[in-house]
Amino acid sequence: MNTPRLITSRANPAFKALSALASDPRAPRHEGRTLADGIHLVADCFAHRITVQQLLVSESGQQHPQIAALLAGAGDIECLLLSDTLFREISGVATPTGIAAVIYIPQASQGDIAGDVVMLDAIQDAGNVGTILRTAAAAGVRDIVLGPGCAGAWTPRVLRAGQGAHFNLRIREQADLAATLAICSGMPVATVAREGVSLYALDLSQPIVWLFGNEGAGLSAELIAAVQQRVTIPLATTSESLNVAAAAAVCLFEAVRQRQ
Amino acid sequence: MNTPRLITSRANPAFKALSALASDPRAPRHEGRTLADGIHLVADCFAHRITVQQLLVSESGQQHPQIAALLAGAGDIECLLLSDTLFREISGVATPTGIAAVIYIPQASQGDIAGDVVMLDAIQDAGNVGTILRTAAAAGVRDIVLGPGCAGAWTPRVLRAGQGAHFNLRIREQADLAATLAICSGMPVATVAREGVSLYALDLSQPIVWLFGNEGAGLSAELIAAVQQRVTIPLATTSESLNVAAAAAVCLFEAVRQRQ
Repeated sequence: MNTPRLITSRANPAFKALSALASDPRAPRHEGRTLADGIHLVADCFAHRITVQQLLVSESGQQHPQIAALLAGAGDIECLLLSDTLFREISGVATPTGIAAVIYIPQASQGDIAGDVVMLDAIQDAGNVGTILRTAAAAGVRDIVLGPGCAGAWTPRVLRAGQGAHFNLRIREQADLAATLAICSGMPVATVAREGVSLYALDLSQPIVWLFGNEGAGLSAELIAAVQQRVTIPLATTSESLNVAAAAAVCLFEAVRQRQ
Repeated sequence: MNTPRLITSRANPAFKALSALASDPRAPRHEGRTLADGIHLVADCFAHRITVQQLLVSESGQQHPQIAALLAGAGDIECLLLSDTLFREISGVATPTGIAAVIYIPQASQGDIAGDVVMLDAIQDAGNVGTILRTAAAAGVRDIVLGPGCAGAWTPRVLRAGQGAHFNLRIREQADLAATLAICSGMPVATVAREGVSLYALDLSQPIVWLFGNEGAGLSAELIAAVQQRVTIPLATTSESLNVAAAAAVCLFEAVRQRQ
């Protein structure tokens, strides 16, 4: 590893570029790269052979044994040393671990899809998208398709909420969901807040294409019309709906249960 | 309703007090009041006869028919009219609906607990706490017990994530969780990331006291030692864990399923 240069000024051009990448949710898609923050995510990037452009380390982070180990294994990747103040601005978490990686976003997958799929329709909250990715990976789903209007899957916030799930998934973004249904062999299931079949009455033994909709509006009318099978999680009478990431967890793990 | 006074200055003492209530997570507990933001939450406060101290309306929000209807039914509750800029600062959401209520936090419930319980051990993220409350209410759980180290249940962010669930729950905070187990008649179940019984092998027909732990560290060793029954959600081998709110959704709705 080369000797890190120390950056202490917000006016530093390298810092300004990092700051834009960290704070503008559109930047990752435009630049084809993103920021993976934290020891856990950086280690995952190395483990999955993700191409790392730069490593960022905070001054105090250098002392951390796990960070020192990551740096020792980083070969000739460029490393920038940031003052703790600047690192915290980039990181976006209250107590950063002190290491982050600028990575190139892996190519979106293409072609037909045979197994389970999770499709997201205009899910806007980064925490929800990241949590759904994490849950999908944990439930053994591999293919994720995000329609327009979703939080960008590769933004730093979604990466953080995904906790490394991204690297075990095949992710497509900005997809025409209705058109993508045609290249999936699984059974499409639209999750709706009411008037669907009970989740617990549905046979989930075959591959399923799950459709989850916007936090407020749910699935678009177009998508609901395109799918025959609608499913509803039975809720207490005083409740209108679940958070979409909670609903996805209930659905995806009901499939896990049925297949055991 | 009295004629609202318009506030346009950050130096206004009423605005400064509201600003502290909105931004300091400790303020609700100290002041015994909190901020319920949005048409949906304010309507829920009225529906559940929560004591409203003040209503806050944005200048543009006044025009909204649902907000006008809420104001028309507000009787002699004091109403403050805020410029859109000031309202946005209080609200904390990107596109506020334009109404919020300052409410008195309902009294914590006391005494023994007979049915299902959700206990939270040091769950720090406000979104996670609020989502778990929303999920618990939707799964028919009534009693929630938060230990020290949890995000305050009545902070504006947790209220927002709860989407009105608070008003259908009995919530205790800052509780000694191990001591509270003794006054619950349900079966305590500690959720652990590994080495517990599979969730799907556990009989959940009787009332359950669910214990969910901190986002990083899980349940404290003391609590795990205090509980005989440990349960684990079976995950894909590439995944280490679920987000705690997703895990709670899977557990609570497995109980719903078994009891149908």
